[in-house]
Amino acid sequence: MRSDIDSLMEERNIDTLLISGKPSSSSDFLYLAGPLKLTGGYVLKKRGENPVIICGLMERDEAAKSGLPVKLLSDFDYQEIMKESRDTIDASAKLIIKILKASKSGEKVALYGVGSIPQTVCLIDRLRRESEFEFIFEAERSIISEARITKDEDEIAAIKRVGEKAEEIFSIVVEYLATSVERDGVLYRNGEPLTIGRMKSLIKAEAETRNLDVSKEEVIFAQGRDAAVPHSRGEPTQKLSTGATIVFDFCPQDSETGYFFDITRTFCVGYVPDEVELIYKRVLEVQTRILESLEVGSDAKHYDEVCSEMFEEWGYPTPRKNPGTTEGYVHGLGHGVGLLIHEPPRLSLFSKKEEPLRPGFVFTVEPGLYFPDRGYGVRLEDVVAIHRNGDIENLTPFPKEILIPIK
Amino acid sequence: MRSDIDSLMEERNIDTLLISGKPSSSSDFLYLAGPLKLTGGYVLKKRGENPVIICGLMERDEAAKSGLPVKLLSDFDYQEIMKESRDTIDASAKLIIKILKASKSGEKVALYGVGSIPQTVCLIDRLRRESEFEFIFEAERSIISEARITKDEDEIAAIKRVGEKAEEIFSIVVEYLATSVERDGVLYRNGEPLTIGRMKSLIKAEAETRNLDVSKEEVIFAQGRDAAVPHSRGEPTQKLSTGATIVFDFCPQDSETGYFFDITRTFCVGYVPDEVELIYKRVLEVQTRILESLEVGSDAKHYDEVCSEMFEEWGYPTPRKNPGTTEGYVHGLGHGVGLLIHEPPRLSLFSKKEEPLRPGFVFTVEPGLYFPDRGYGVRLEDVVAIHRNGDIENLTPFPKEILIPIK
Repeated sequence: MRSDIDSLMEERNIDTLLISGKPSSSSDFLYLAGPLKLTGGYVLKKRGENPVIICGLMERDEAAKSGLPVKLLSDFDYQEIMKESRDTIDASAKLIIKILKASKSGEKVALYGVGSIPQTVCLIDRLRRESEFEFIFEAERSIISEARITKDEDEIAAIKRVGEKAEEIFSIVVEYLATSVERDGVLYRNGEPLTIGRMKSLIKAEAETRNLDVSKEEVIFAQGRDAAVPHSRGEPTQKLSTGATIVFDFCPQDSETGYFFDITRTFCVGYVPDEVELIYKRVLEVQTRILESLEVGSDAKHYDEVCSEMFEEWGYPTPRKNPGTTEGYVHGLGHGVGLLIHEPPRLSLFSKKEEPLRPGFVFTVEPGLYFPDRGYGVRLEDVVAIHRNGDIENLTPFPKEILIPIK
Repeated sequence: MRSDIDSLMEERNIDTLLISGKPSSSSDFLYLAGPLKLTGGYVLKKRGENPVIICGLMERDEAAKSGLPVKLLSDFDYQEIMKESRDTIDASAKLIIKILKASKSGEKVALYGVGSIPQTVCLIDRLRRESEFEFIFEAERSIISEARITKDEDEIAAIKRVGEKAEEIFSIVVEYLATSVERDGVLYRNGEPLTIGRMKSLIKAEAETRNLDVSKEEVIFAQGRDAAVPHSRGEPTQKLSTGATIVFDFCPQDSETGYFFDITRTFCVGYVPDEVELIYKRVLEVQTRILESLEVGSDAKHYDEVCSEMFEEWGYPTPRKNPGTTEGYVHGLGHGVGLLIHEPPRLSLFSKKEEPLRPGFVFTVEPGLYFPDRGYGVRLEDVVAIHRNGDIENLTPFPKEILIPIK
């Protein structure tokens, strides 16, 4: 949680966090500054003090919306620095040193953000050579990611709200499919065959009206063989057919808060082939078992082991028994959801570390079975939150009915 | 141009380019691999050979759409590497070394891509320590950016095509405003006051149907004082008024090709206040003068000097005369447009280097005058391309009429 940052800084002996970039490309920037529409700048956080946003003059009003103190690049003589610098790397290095000195930062500074690899390397080489500060780079569980892994109640509420909007769209999609017309096994509306592309346009338009950004994570609306390849997003021109499995996996980001949601349902319109029915029943059984057994204190990877065990007992390939399999259960059980669509904790049996479930964790539970050669795949994905008091809430009440009967 | 890459590698004595990340976050990846929907991987290009895409098994089909050779992470024993590695940084370093060795790369390897700053630094520290390759980091005009600055005719055609789609949307917006109804100085449609938010929804919906992605660069549709702050995007709830200046600045990215366009027009609906009329005339005069005087071989910054000179002669503040001004001419004249919305060349008098205009350059010409205290601003922005034969084409034929009369 945000309130952990100071004690983590203390524990790791870090004086200052400096995040460069912008909220739309760095989730750490977003975490500290909120969903501001900035084109670039810095967030500086000293131990025990509020974060400060540093941005250009034109973006002062936008930055002020955060409620945080705002300083301008010109307060640190940015224009003069630019003039006297050999190049942009030189200017950035001088600016960062000037910001740290002017802010009376202690010696140990952890740098964060996202950037071009060659520019980052040249900038850091120069900073290390030319400054008295000691720069720290936390690649694996950084202070901010450690704070972010446990959401506070406001964050859980924000994620739940994205989920509610997402489920409104699922309802619209189900109703849209249910009120289509079948002719020779193909679905039609207003005399036109329904395509994957048409469905995605509908989903994107509904997302737009709800302030949901669907550009960062492509909408997956995949049918038949495509539904059997977890990363396939579906071919726009493909027509929807009765009895084909449709995997609808939706990861919108709320423009108002920056938080993501992640929900998957699998549908068949008109009827469900017997073999798909069986697969669906089993995926649902696994998901239900896992959801019912979640417990604070249990290791996250344990649940992926339970899931794999169940699938293996029924004879399906799994990654631990058949490394590299593209059939059966082919991915991990789940992942954290927050200001990134994939973040810690991982519910994967391949995790190296213990990760006991803790209050504040928000994560997906998404077992699936895939059979590309048979032309179908099934996945069910819910998001679960563990509240401060230890209560576990499934944020995804949307029904799990594979069949959408045509009205 | 793409065809320059091998000679630039030769000139700079680089054996291999290795780009990590994905096309949607690294424009260099996008340049070499095309607009693929990959969630991560590498592009490796050896001097004198075609680029090779390296990705996960699930994304093989998507990668193959590029027409380039595709290798799988599993071809480099990714799973085994993951198992025997301490952490993800360790695993990435081992994987990169394995990829370079298996590809029989020469010693000098330039690394590209976009990534988390702490992870990049830790990864590169490890690579430098543990491998026999020499890694090169080109922060300022890299080989790929040097190639990208001159577009070939296919790229110019792709950018022109985005411009045509953008101008279709400008026509729709103008028609929409022209067919609104005025009551007490406010614009209405279907009895509802027209808001900035409504206009942006219209623009986004029209973009969506044309496969234009407007999420990377926020649509600017700003009125009154907001129009006088170049980075302001406009407040969604603000109602549109007759006689107010509206700056509509649109930077869509074509999902089919990855190329951007950038066009701005300034409008007044119903009538144009006299003082705005004068400002508009002057901005248009500057833009026309610049557009007519563009010449292959002239230094890019020269045009920003001409622009500043004209504005200064009329008595307006400019950044070179009044550093940090927020009134008058407050930004540079233009920037390159391609797989990023802002890329070289810069048409800015603050540029450090000479940058003579060359065939293949595609850039904006966007003078503007801003008066936040008087509540208006004016900007006009066209995109210009210099063809291989030296012909200069304005890709932005959309009319420059400030007045939108109500029909």
